[in-house]
Amino acid sequence: MTTRRLHLNAFLMSTGHHEASWRLPESDPYAHVDLRHYTRLAQTAERGTFDSLFLADSPQLWGELGQRPAGALEPLTLLTALATATEHIGLIATASTSYNSPYNLARRFASLDIVSGGRAGWNIVTTAGAEAARNFGLDHEPAHAERYARAAEFLDVALKLWDSWEDDTIVADKAAGVWGDDDKIHPARHEGPYFRVGGALNVPRSPQGYPLLVQAGSSADGKAFAARYAEAVFTAQQTLADAQSFYADIKDRTERAGRHPGHLKVLPGIVPVLGSTEAEARAAEQVLEDHIVPEHGLRRLERLLQLAPGDLELDRQLPAELPPESAVEGAKSRYTLVVELARRERLTVRQLIGRLGGGRGHQTFAGTPEQIADRIETWFTRGAADGFNIMPPVLPSSLDAFVDHVVPLLRARGLFRTEYGPKRTLRERYGLPRPANQHLSPAFA
Amino acid sequence: MTTRRLHLNAFLMSTGHHEASWRLPESDPYAHVDLRHYTRLAQTAERGTFDSLFLADSPQLWGELGQRPAGALEPLTLLTALATATEHIGLIATASTSYNSPYNLARRFASLDIVSGGRAGWNIVTTAGAEAARNFGLDHEPAHAERYARAAEFLDVALKLWDSWEDDTIVADKAAGVWGDDDKIHPARHEGPYFRVGGALNVPRSPQGYPLLVQAGSSADGKAFAARYAEAVFTAQQTLADAQSFYADIKDRTERAGRHPGHLKVLPGIVPVLGSTEAEARAAEQVLEDHIVPEHGLRRLERLLQLAPGDLELDRQLPAELPPESAVEGAKSRYTLVVELARRERLTVRQLIGRLGGGRGHQTFAGTPEQIADRIETWFTRGAADGFNIMPPVLPSSLDAFVDHVVPLLRARGLFRTEYGPKRTLRERYGLPRPANQHLSPAFA
Repeated sequence: MTTRRLHLNAFLMSTGHHEASWRLPESDPYAHVDLRHYTRLAQTAERGTFDSLFLADSPQLWGELGQRPAGALEPLTLLTALATATEHIGLIATASTSYNSPYNLARRFASLDIVSGGRAGWNIVTTAGAEAARNFGLDHEPAHAERYARAAEFLDVALKLWDSWEDDTIVADKAAGVWGDDDKIHPARHEGPYFRVGGALNVPRSPQGYPLLVQAGSSADGKAFAARYAEAVFTAQQTLADAQSFYADIKDRTERAGRHPGHLKVLPGIVPVLGSTEAEARAAEQVLEDHIVPEHGLRRLERLLQLAPGDLELDRQLPAELPPESAVEGAKSRYTLVVELARRERLTVRQLIGRLGGGRGHQTFAGTPEQIADRIETWFTRGAADGFNIMPPVLPSSLDAFVDHVVPLLRARGLFRTEYGPKRTLRERYGLPRPANQHLSPAFA
Repeated sequence: MTTRRLHLNAFLMSTGHHEASWRLPESDPYAHVDLRHYTRLAQTAERGTFDSLFLADSPQLWGELGQRPAGALEPLTLLTALATATEHIGLIATASTSYNSPYNLARRFASLDIVSGGRAGWNIVTTAGAEAARNFGLDHEPAHAERYARAAEFLDVALKLWDSWEDDTIVADKAAGVWGDDDKIHPARHEGPYFRVGGALNVPRSPQGYPLLVQAGSSADGKAFAARYAEAVFTAQQTLADAQSFYADIKDRTERAGRHPGHLKVLPGIVPVLGSTEAEARAAEQVLEDHIVPEHGLRRLERLLQLAPGDLELDRQLPAELPPESAVEGAKSRYTLVVELARRERLTVRQLIGRLGGGRGHQTFAGTPEQIADRIETWFTRGAADGFNIMPPVLPSSLDAFVDHVVPLLRARGLFRTEYGPKRTLRERYGLPRPANQHLSPAFA
C-alpha cells in the first residue's frame, strides 16, 4: 500500500504574509510586481518539492497604500510566467466566480493547464465586499447565498466547457484532409438563472481535463460548495481540536455528496516563524510585531468586526457585545475565528492585532524547525490535515528557511516526498485521479 | 533627422495562415496548442528584429474541425509565456470589448506589460458573429454600431484605470512605515451606458503607461474608432491604390481627431510565398492550393457572402446580384474587399477560394525575396504603409524564410533596423511617445 504523504502548498504574497514584512531591511517594497522575485520563490518551493504554489486575489485595490503594499499582478498572468521558470510545481490561481464569465475563465485555466503541462489549479472564490462589486457595475455586493448559487452554476458551466472536447477529438489525417472529428465536440448548451453559454470551448481538453479545483470558504455555504466540487481546501484553524472538527466535517460532507472523502485534501494555513532556538524564533516574531503600526491594525480590525472608528481601544479587550456571525456579510468564518481567538486567550486589541499581523487568522507558529515539524506531524497524523498551506511571514527568507530546515526533517520522518518522481500533473501530486469526461459517462453511453 | 524606418509585425497562427498549411509534411497538427512551437516562432521573429508579434482571437470555436485546426491558447496567456522566452519583441494580443469587463482586461494587459518590461499591445476587436454572443448570454450579436459604442466606452474606462496610479505613487519609506501615497490614486468613478466602474486598478501604472493600442476594423465605425484611439492599424489591402487611399484617409481622420498622424502606424497584411526563383514561388503556392479541399472553401465563402448553401458554383464567377455592404453585419469591409477582388480579376469561385486560402482577403505575394522586398519598399515609400503585418503562409518555414532572406535585403536598403538598440518598450519601437497620465494633464492641474 502507498504510504500517506503530506501535501505542501506555498502561499506566496509579495514581501510575505506578515503585514509589516515590507519594512524589514531585506524586503523589496516593489516585490509585489517583480517577476524575478516570484520566479525565485517558485524555484525555491520547487527545490523543496512542494506540491504547488498559490496566489490569492480580489479584483479591487485593497486598503490604504499608506499602510502597506497594495496591488498585485493578475494571478493567471503571473503563474503563466512562472510555469516557464519551473518544471514540476503546481500553479494555483485565485479567480472569482462573481466577476468573471465562465467562457473566458474556463479557457484561461485550460490554456494555463496546457502551457504548464498539467499543473494548473483554480482557487474558486465568490469575492466578498462592495468595493469589488462596484468595479463590475453593481452598487452592492450580492448576498452571500446568491454568490454561492452563482458559483455553483459557474462551476457546472465551466465543467461542461472543459469537457466540450473529447480527449481524442483531433484526428490529424493529413492525407484525407481531416483534422478533427466534429462528433467529439459537445457544445455547452447551458441555460440557467445566471448564465447562458451555447458553444464548445475553443481550446482542446487539457492535460488534467481541467484545473485542480480548490476552495477556501469555511461558511456553511462554503463547506457545502467544497463538498460538492473541491479537490483541495485551504482553511484557517487555530487549534488542533477545531482543525480536527473541520476535517471530520468536510470529509463527511464530501462523502455525503457522493464523493470519495480522500478526493478532497484539507490544508490548514500555518505561518512559520523559524529560529534555531525557540528564543530566536520568538525574537524574530517580536521584530515583526514591533514594525506594525498599531493604529493601522486597529482600523482594519474595526472594519472586520463591522464597528465604527473609535469603537475599539488598543489596550482593552474586545467589547462584550458584538453582532452574531449571521449578521456579517463577507468573511463570516473569519469573523468568528477572530472573535473566538480574542475571547479564548483574553487578548487585548493590541495583542490581537499582533496575532493577526502574521496570518490574518491563520495560525502563526514561532519555534525551531523541529517544533514546527512536530506540529505538522501531529496535525497530519491526528486527523486534522492532509497537508499544509505554508504562509511565509517574510519573503524570500522565511520560505528559504522552511525549505532548508523544515522540509529535510519532514522527509527524514518519511512524511514528505524526497523528489518529484515520474508524476507530472498537479492532480497526480495530490493523489487524485484525472476526471473522466462527463460526455463519456455511462449515463451518456 | 531620424530616417523613417519600416515596422514589421509577425502575425502568428498555428501551422500558418494558409488554410491547408496543416496538411504539409513539415506541419505539426497539434501546433496550435504547442508552446514550444510558438516559442520557436517568437525567437525567430526576434532574430529578425521584428517590432512585434501578434495573435488574433475570438471567444468561440470557429468553423468545422473536420476541415482544419480549430481552437487556440488564450492569447494573453500564450504571450505571457512568450514574454519569458524573448527580450525585445512586442507582444500584441487580440481581446474583445464586447465580451470582457474593463476592470479585468485592463488589469491583465497592465500585468503583461509589467511582466514583459513594457512590451504589451492590445488589438482591440468588437467581435462579430452570433456564435460568440451566445457564449456570453446573448441570443444575437449586438448591432455593429452598438458594438463600437461599447468599445469606445470600454476604452475610456480602461484608460481611466491605467491612469489610476500616478507613476510615482509608491513611496517605500520603511522607516516611517509609509508604503504609498494615497493622494496619487485616482479611482475610475466611471458611470456610462455600458459600464460602471468605481475603484482604482489593483496594479501600478505599467512601463508603457498602457499597452500599445492596435485596431484592425476597416468599416466607417472602425476607422473612426482607430482615428480616436489606435496607435497601429492592421488592414487588408489588395492594391497599391486602395492602400494609398486607406492610408491617406486614416491619417487624415487621425489628424481631424486632434492627434498627430504619425502617432498612428498603418500596417497592411501580406502573405509572402517565397521561392529562390519566381517559378519556385509559384510552385510553392500551387502546392498549397492543391491541398485546399474546394468544398470547404465553398461553404465558408457562402457564409461570408451570407448566401444559402448551393448558391455558388466552383467553376463560375460570383452571382451578379449580391447584397450591399450595408446589409452585412460583421466583417463589412472584408465582404466588400472579397467581392471587389472577384469582380476586378474575373475570378471563378474556385480561383477566388485559392486566393483567399492564404490570407483570407489579405494580399498574397508569391515571388523571390527581392520581389517581395521591392513590393514592401514601394508601398512604404509611396504612402501606402508604415510597415507590414507579415502573415507567413506556413509556420515555421515561411517565417524562417522571411527572416533569413527578406529581412537582410530590407536592412541592406536602409529600410529596417539591424538591431534592437537601447529602446526597450513596444511603443518606443513604433516611434511613439509614452502617454501622459490624464490626471496630470493641464486640465487637472
